[in-house]
Amino acid sequence: MSIEPFDVVDLIRTKRDHGALTTEQVNWMVDAYTRGYIADEQMSAMAMAIFLNGMEREEVRDMTLAMVASGTRLDFSGLSKKTTDKHSTGGVGDKITLPLAPLVASFGVAVPQLSGRGLGHTGGTLDKLESIPGWRANVSVDDMMAQLEGAGAVVCAAGSGLAPADGKLYALRDTTGTVECIPLIASSIMSKKIAEGTAALVLDVKFGSGAFLKDIEMSRELAKVMVRLGEDAGVATRAVLTNMNVPLGLAIGNANEVRESVEVLAGGGPADIVELTVTLARHMLALAGITDADVEGALANGQAMDTWRAMIAAQGGDPGAALPVAREQHVVTADRDGVLVEQQALPFGIAAWRLGAGRARKQDPVDHAAGIDLHAKPGDVVTKGQPLFTMHTNEAARFDRALEALEGGYRIGVAGDEVVTGGPLIAGVVEA
Amino acid sequence: MSIEPFDVVDLIRTKRDHGALTTEQVNWMVDAYTRGYIADEQMSAMAMAIFLNGMEREEVRDMTLAMVASGTRLDFSGLSKKTTDKHSTGGVGDKITLPLAPLVASFGVAVPQLSGRGLGHTGGTLDKLESIPGWRANVSVDDMMAQLEGAGAVVCAAGSGLAPADGKLYALRDTTGTVECIPLIASSIMSKKIAEGTAALVLDVKFGSGAFLKDIEMSRELAKVMVRLGEDAGVATRAVLTNMNVPLGLAIGNANEVRESVEVLAGGGPADIVELTVTLARHMLALAGITDADVEGALANGQAMDTWRAMIAAQGGDPGAALPVAREQHVVTADRDGVLVEQQALPFGIAAWRLGAGRARKQDPVDHAAGIDLHAKPGDVVTKGQPLFTMHTNEAARFDRALEALEGGYRIGVAGDEVVTGGPLIAGVVEA
Repeated sequence: MSIEPFDVVDLIRTKRDHGALTTEQVNWMVDAYTRGYIADEQMSAMAMAIFLNGMEREEVRDMTLAMVASGTRLDFSGLSKKTTDKHSTGGVGDKITLPLAPLVASFGVAVPQLSGRGLGHTGGTLDKLESIPGWRANVSVDDMMAQLEGAGAVVCAAGSGLAPADGKLYALRDTTGTVECIPLIASSIMSKKIAEGTAALVLDVKFGSGAFLKDIEMSRELAKVMVRLGEDAGVATRAVLTNMNVPLGLAIGNANEVRESVEVLAGGGPADIVELTVTLARHMLALAGITDADVEGALANGQAMDTWRAMIAAQGGDPGAALPVAREQHVVTADRDGVLVEQQALPFGIAAWRLGAGRARKQDPVDHAAGIDLHAKPGDVVTKGQPLFTMHTNEAARFDRALEALEGGYRIGVAGDEVVTGGPLIAGVVEA
Repeated sequence: MSIEPFDVVDLIRTKRDHGALTTEQVNWMVDAYTRGYIADEQMSAMAMAIFLNGMEREEVRDMTLAMVASGTRLDFSGLSKKTTDKHSTGGVGDKITLPLAPLVASFGVAVPQLSGRGLGHTGGTLDKLESIPGWRANVSVDDMMAQLEGAGAVVCAAGSGLAPADGKLYALRDTTGTVECIPLIASSIMSKKIAEGTAALVLDVKFGSGAFLKDIEMSRELAKVMVRLGEDAGVATRAVLTNMNVPLGLAIGNANEVRESVEVLAGGGPADIVELTVTLARHMLALAGITDADVEGALANGQAMDTWRAMIAAQGGDPGAALPVAREQHVVTADRDGVLVEQQALPFGIAAWRLGAGRARKQDPVDHAAGIDLHAKPGDVVTKGQPLFTMHTNEAARFDRALEALEGGYRIGVAGDEVVTGGPLIAGVVEA
């Protein structure tokens, strides 16, 4: 006879038949799955039942906390500063963490961002930073504490010790068609951020063609669930709903996204990147009790740039070093005079991915120099022969499949045509 | 790059999102799962999506035929006799195959019954027959052909070569909470029976507390789906809906069920067993073109018994040998005068299982002598102290848990109380 307190098939049947699991059942399930007592094929049947039948609020909370409890939880209470962090659900050209973390830290708060690598068409923050010569993603907990006291911001790899149950479940969901499910997404993201130990958290929840969730209402629901989860776990949490129908900024890739981030930190950069960086910075600072910060000033006067340099240098990077440049370029030009009325995030994300900026499998390397530089944004007037975007790669053979992905991904219309952007960049805020 | 024609995650998403799979997709899925390209955790997510979202008629047909195609299909066209078979969805005390196969075969048709072992509270026909000294479940195809020409009936183990995809999927469903699902049950049963090669098939589809499906409407739906599947595959198929709220006959176990079957073949036996045997025999014979058989006569005059002896002897069994008897007995008596108004199949099935008549895991042995003999049936007048049933086992320690299962499983009322049986034994027939 087994000494396990529950029968996993009973638990699967409960979710399958629209029932709810108790706290004890959820705790056991997450623990038993982490130690391998529950098999992958049982957990995937459970995940599909959750996908199709949903979870009660209490179940999502229990699931999240059980995944936090499956590993270690960092503790920043010994720091002299308040901690505040941001998490984005992922987008195309989304390099916001790069200017944002040093900008916020430059006001005397600590930004402990434990991040991941990219998989699929949305890039990973660590991949972008790794294009800086010498920069290391792995930081020990002691070094992290020292860097937060000093530079104030750290962006580093989340060790496997944080929410290991989530790591295992996430990999399973990826191969079993159970990814796009609010209770599972919310508990996955929030278990990692709660385990990370931040006291405050701003969520950038994206919607639109280039986002994980296409529909704004699903994104709003995800935001609400995550904000509740954060608050339930004692993390001051707020979510911003942002539009991901158009690529963010003018750079999609890795090294080129670092270049664009440095432009923003130098007081320049594309308007959308500046707007989102400044908005998220205000929310992060507000949750840390700072409501009067001059965030635009900190970008203009070099204050944020100083923190950036310190933060990069603390992890071995040379903030002044030349970034990698690809051997091959292909420029796409306008085939007529008119207005760029459409530029869809998803095809551009996939094209950059195919150029080598992203990876198809976890173990693949990325080409830091690969990517796309945009020369026009939706609403811009263009003339025939003018460059619309430049593709970069170290393997010229990749251009064809990238161009294939871009077919129908942008459109030149005439003056007066509707410019398709899916609405403003910032669509709303969800607070507790 | 993979040379596989489909992406399994796309197929899972299709079922998850209420879509239908094409014939090519189903064929590929079953083949890819059989050869291990599709992993168990992917197939269980698919099974849960099918469980919750259903399957179109064409998908169930495709799934069934793909599972048939995953192995060999027997061919009885070389026999001098017509083939006709029966399959029961399983019940408590359901030994009908034992008198039925020789009864039907005694009219000159061939009954090629490939059967399984029991798992759970419903026993397996092979387990029952294996209580006969010397009897062997494994028969080669050549010996099967010879036995069908001779004795006319063979009840033997279905080799792993028949519908191996179903074998793999069935084991997976058992541990992932995806058993009670009509498209999956129907395709599982019918793939094996179609692969078995019978020209005609009568399905005994049970409903009620002791059956796999509790609800008669679900059973009727399952019957309809299976009859269609049979006809689509060229097998003349008919289903009988039968009541499984009360144990069938007076014996639940293995050796005791063989004893009861021999009583029926000797012209005696409990009325319900005789009724079901005779009814199913008439349908099986009708599908083989014989409509004027005197089936009651064949039980009374020894014709069926002769075939039984020949069939058992052909597989090494001694039809005259003493059957195993358990070392331990426990008699439960009536605690008052009255009428036995309730006797539920499920508790008695579980109790017999706990006494050792069934197995918890595939690899467990069964205790052929273990089981329960009933001394009263619902509606019988009982007097205080009169034996109601006797439990048999070789391990006295098993009595307690068996008695636990029986708590509330039977009830003595007073004259005039409603006798709870859930209606007549034969509830309907489903024809093509």
